[in-house]
Amino acid sequence: MLTLHHHPISAAARFARLALSEYDVEFTPIEQRLWERDPAFLTMNPLGTLPVLVEDARPAICGYGPVSEYLDETRGTMARERRLMPEDPFDRAEARRLVDWYLGKLETDVTRYLVRERVEKLFMTHEQGGGSPDAGTIRAARANITYHMQYSEWLAGTRSWMGGDQMSVADLAAAAALSCLDYIGEVPFDDYPNLKDWYSRMKSRPSFRPLLADRLRGLQPVPHYADLDF
Amino acid sequence: MLTLHHHPISAAARFARLALSEYDVEFTPIEQRLWERDPAFLTMNPLGTLPVLVEDARPAICGYGPVSEYLDETRGTMARERRLMPEDPFDRAEARRLVDWYLGKLETDVTRYLVRERVEKLFMTHEQGGGSPDAGTIRAARANITYHMQYSEWLAGTRSWMGGDQMSVADLAAAAALSCLDYIGEVPFDDYPNLKDWYSRMKSRPSFRPLLADRLRGLQPVPHYADLDF
Repeated sequence: MLTLHHHPISAAARFARLALSEYDVEFTPIEQRLWERDPAFLTMNPLGTLPVLVEDARPAICGYGPVSEYLDETRGTMARERRLMPEDPFDRAEARRLVDWYLGKLETDVTRYLVRERVEKLFMTHEQGGGSPDAGTIRAARANITYHMQYSEWLAGTRSWMGGDQMSVADLAAAAALSCLDYIGEVPFDDYPNLKDWYSRMKSRPSFRPLLADRLRGLQPVPHYADLDF
Repeated sequence: MLTLHHHPISAAARFARLALSEYDVEFTPIEQRLWERDPAFLTMNPLGTLPVLVEDARPAICGYGPVSEYLDETRGTMARERRLMPEDPFDRAEARRLVDWYLGKLETDVTRYLVRERVEKLFMTHEQGGGSPDAGTIRAARANITYHMQYSEWLAGTRSWMGGDQMSVADLAAAAALSCLDYIGEVPFDDYPNLKDWYSRMKSRPSFRPLLADRLRGLQPVPHYADLDF
């Protein structure tokens, strides 16, 4: 029995949902609004990050890195050609680097700010930091996205999948992060044809359907968000 | 043949040096000053982070997470009782959580700011961001350290080692991070007896000797830094 603490617009939590789904693992989702700083959640994960995975009342597995490795160890190694981690240690290092890239660097350069300003502030009280989005923060985050788009376009244009010859956690991390930004229309896919083609492939996977069905109360996604021919 | 790109006052790079040493792996250290933004280094690791490990001219392994997992896969699994990762998947998840805690959260709450303001700025040109330390930044970082000390004291007081019953990457990460802060006298060990006892054990390990011998040009460590009976 698995429980996943997540939020629909958290890139790292979307990554965990994709990985669980790719391995056909059923789980109970529990939505966490980090800005509410729920004491029970912070006791479970003092880091205060998502995702948090709990299996069979064992200690919580906290954060995208530990969750990714745990799923590989307990599901991936038995999944044969559907394993989300490459066999070669150098290829695994590259997959992990890209997971850190999309859920670490892109998150701190871009995603965190755009999601907070444009989404989370809608749901926060004044005391929690809610209010009008900060135009300067949004401008800075949008300026940062170009570099990430160029790098992603290069990856998508020179490799079959983001991490190399096979689909891996690198693709799930990239797609999870970009899907959060795409919900609010912040990804200029039309300028990056190889990236768009790769994202179209990711979007068509059954594991992606629950993400495309996500709707935040009071904030509809852009029209093309769930469109497979965007 | 292994090469490690590191910096003496980088917590994540110290973590890699400790892990390599615990596994008796010889390596050639190359000092990187991240603030110089060396194009060759950034080509190798666009994330711009330390450590970066290169083995036999294969692709670079970038960042503390991928380096930690790579060393476990290529050295740890053969190291028997000296392996730095527990056998049980839940215990491994806990060790990884604490590596993220000390090299991620403590880094972004405290270490990065104190190291930048009190150390790196001494070596930076004006264009690179050098100059006088910012008192407000130092004050904020020092305010954040108390929570981390309390949490670390609790870990050290309730477990044999930080992650559980055996020494693991969690201990190396914690000791690496605290040793950077201790170099500049920012760790109030005397107020945290269990943590002090644990750190004393870590300091006495042969793997720690090179760290205790580190000297930054123009910035001596506090007198007790290399003292095993501090």
